[in-house]
Amino acid sequence: MKHTKVKDLLNGTKTLHEVKAKGWVRTFRNNQFIALNDGSTINNIQCVVDFENTPDETLKRITTGAAVSVTGTLVESQGAGQTVEIQVTKLEILGDSDPEKYPMQPKKHSLEFLRENAHLRIRTNAFGAIMRVRSTLSFAVHQYFQEKGFFYVNTPIITGSDAEGAGEMFRVTALPFDGTPRTEDGQVNFKEDFFGKETNLTVSGQLEGETYAMALGQIYTFGPTFRAENSNTSRHLAEFWMIEPEVAFNNLADNMDLAEDFIKYVIKYTVDKCGDDLKFLEQRLLDEEKSKPQAERSEMSLLEKLSFVMDNNFKRVSYTEAIDILKSSKPNKNKKFNYIIDEWGADLQSEHERYLVEKHFKCPVILFDYPAKIKAFYMRLNEDGKTVRAMDILFPGIGEIVGGSQREERLDVLLQKIADLGIDEKELWWYLDTRRFGTAIHSGFGLGFERLVLFVTGMSNIRDVIPFPRTPQNAEF
Amino acid sequence: MKHTKVKDLLNGTKTLHEVKAKGWVRTFRNNQFIALNDGSTINNIQCVVDFENTPDETLKRITTGAAVSVTGTLVESQGAGQTVEIQVTKLEILGDSDPEKYPMQPKKHSLEFLRENAHLRIRTNAFGAIMRVRSTLSFAVHQYFQEKGFFYVNTPIITGSDAEGAGEMFRVTALPFDGTPRTEDGQVNFKEDFFGKETNLTVSGQLEGETYAMALGQIYTFGPTFRAENSNTSRHLAEFWMIEPEVAFNNLADNMDLAEDFIKYVIKYTVDKCGDDLKFLEQRLLDEEKSKPQAERSEMSLLEKLSFVMDNNFKRVSYTEAIDILKSSKPNKNKKFNYIIDEWGADLQSEHERYLVEKHFKCPVILFDYPAKIKAFYMRLNEDGKTVRAMDILFPGIGEIVGGSQREERLDVLLQKIADLGIDEKELWWYLDTRRFGTAIHSGFGLGFERLVLFVTGMSNIRDVIPFPRTPQNAEF
Repeated sequence: MKHTKVKDLLNGTKTLHEVKAKGWVRTFRNNQFIALNDGSTINNIQCVVDFENTPDETLKRITTGAAVSVTGTLVESQGAGQTVEIQVTKLEILGDSDPEKYPMQPKKHSLEFLRENAHLRIRTNAFGAIMRVRSTLSFAVHQYFQEKGFFYVNTPIITGSDAEGAGEMFRVTALPFDGTPRTEDGQVNFKEDFFGKETNLTVSGQLEGETYAMALGQIYTFGPTFRAENSNTSRHLAEFWMIEPEVAFNNLADNMDLAEDFIKYVIKYTVDKCGDDLKFLEQRLLDEEKSKPQAERSEMSLLEKLSFVMDNNFKRVSYTEAIDILKSSKPNKNKKFNYIIDEWGADLQSEHERYLVEKHFKCPVILFDYPAKIKAFYMRLNEDGKTVRAMDILFPGIGEIVGGSQREERLDVLLQKIADLGIDEKELWWYLDTRRFGTAIHSGFGLGFERLVLFVTGMSNIRDVIPFPRTPQNAEF
Repeated sequence: MKHTKVKDLLNGTKTLHEVKAKGWVRTFRNNQFIALNDGSTINNIQCVVDFENTPDETLKRITTGAAVSVTGTLVESQGAGQTVEIQVTKLEILGDSDPEKYPMQPKKHSLEFLRENAHLRIRTNAFGAIMRVRSTLSFAVHQYFQEKGFFYVNTPIITGSDAEGAGEMFRVTALPFDGTPRTEDGQVNFKEDFFGKETNLTVSGQLEGETYAMALGQIYTFGPTFRAENSNTSRHLAEFWMIEPEVAFNNLADNMDLAEDFIKYVIKYTVDKCGDDLKFLEQRLLDEEKSKPQAERSEMSLLEKLSFVMDNNFKRVSYTEAIDILKSSKPNKNKKFNYIIDEWGADLQSEHERYLVEKHFKCPVILFDYPAKIKAFYMRLNEDGKTVRAMDILFPGIGEIVGGSQREERLDVLLQKIADLGIDEKELWWYLDTRRFGTAIHSGFGLGFERLVLFVTGMSNIRDVIPFPRTPQNAEF
């Protein structure tokens, strides 16, 4: 007899039938009630063991974490909190779990302890919920773009291009540290390396993505990106997944529309599909915040916050307006900001972004038209000659979740910017070709996927929303 | 007025309306007929220019590769091969394309030339078709697994684990080659590296995936994997995308069923969605094969081959049976094989696999129950003590497309195998934990995505089915 998933058993259509379930014991109460979970849902199915006719030897092996197979009749449950249960007629222990040794006992573990056991934390309710939500969000990303006629593009992970300028890069090499091949003048001879040149892990697929958008029209990437920055914060990972759509003929306003529509779609899709997981995570957050002073608690519950984002327009504010708001804000006047905003051109810090989003507008904010000097070379220069068509989307509690721009489509302007930065244009010959041949306006953005997962799950540390986080001094597993 | 995608214009529902289209000129005939493509489909829309009322200056700029915006009336077309066309009333050149310099002229280019221009080859019919098919296949992968209740897991790309044993790895490092930090005894001091230890690019997400399957039940990965092997063949890439499902409680037969069902689903989905692209690729293959001797041409057209795979059961053959077939085969007796099969235990070479698939069975073949000695340590040992529950799926023209197995779930057997291989079990502490706590049988497989794209597109070199291929001595772009 083939086993049925717990999720399908719980929908109750097989009542009074003989069923089989396989999964792991979460708890075993009164020598009688197994709470069995198989990962298909956050909910356990109660399996009622006929303890009088079950050998003590077997009962003792029904411990938290043990893998079991149960066969029996699915019946309506008398117990609270469940609709059906299995009256067990046959129980088989598939794999034991020694309660003296199993780290994931049914009690509260610290998130730090769970990170050290990233291979087992997925067996907890919270991480099961987080990772199911993550999977659903991933699929929503693909479905959104595919429905709209975008094509998925796998831009390279190992890159020979180092002009992206988005951050510090990891080197990829097959050369040894001992006996490294050298040229006559003592330099490392990268011609002897696997790719015949210096290579790094990509920090962004944007530049390659642009070349595809200028042929396929609408494309998106969704893949891993890397930063070798020594940022030991709750918002940074050395390895993270990024989504980068790029659209030919889109201007900055189209780009904002796309980003807002996209974010609302994937959140709605996930709220619709992951109700049970999100309810659990909402309660988890409430419980966590109970220990905080009232002022630090969220004004909205998790699901209220998600509804708020889905139901309201993101506020669109130019950088110049934002600077005016910040200059005349209380924390600026009272010198509560670490970085006081005193003039146009200042780069915004996380504290300023949070003020705008959480105190001033109290909703997601799209900032646009930033000073050219604080933004990347490929962004479209405005007619004022000093701002570029950049946009950042700022979310409450998360900060920047999206960074994007209309791209500079004019070859002469782009060449000048590259020269000003001291980048060798030969390095970017292929990128510049898109402006040499059939150039057109186009726009795109990057969304850090883990920041989106953070927002949707209500977790506060980015290490808890990716299966095996990579951070400074940590590449276990 | 907002422009409409060419794909939507060609479906003809806007006939007699004023429409706008934006895209790139593929050809311009008789100073009158623009074949315009915007990447949304392989089909161009014909735009009829009112050349008598268009300045010569403008007409001269309508060259292959130029980006243009056309406005006009959509009308039924009198020409052959198209249903509708645009009678242009307004034409705007968005971006020029100098015909003296543009490399992608409307003529036959060699695939090697196109590889050197990977950023522009996407503007050709063939690569547009290939990459749209690739995108559709990717989505089919996600949709298949999500519909079946699998969860998508992002296993780490940078790994501190080097016990996977699937091949040579690339080092990932932030240490310099000059002035590398050393320990007192002169060794490289990886404690000073970014992650505090030696790290590499992953060759497989399987081991981490197993830890998730043993909690979520059914998972799949779909991400980049890497091999630092100096294989300059038409079937190998240094960076490629792999799909790795893993299912708790599945045995080897379930695993074969899953793989076969999965492959048939994604091919069917793609045939249904990408008809025009596949028809083009089918014709491309026919044209290419015209120059070959009759004996080397395919027996089936591309779409016939895809239907054949969808409509027929994969032949399941044990390794032992396969060896018997090969031993008594003509090429073995006549010593036409480079490696003569003379006894049980031999590792099968590509020539043997191709013989079985293309000559003997003439259909996809699943080989199973391989000798333990030629397979990986984590595969389930059969009761005979000498074979393991491994399976490889072999495809005509491609060879191995899937490799999988039931995993060894018994801690004692696994420990023994690891010890025999000289692997330090401390390296795999977390992997072994899945067998220490609640172990159960489980199975999975890996499918090299580019080999699937090769099969579905009928291309013959794997460098032509990934946007920016990474191979020895090549990491341009």
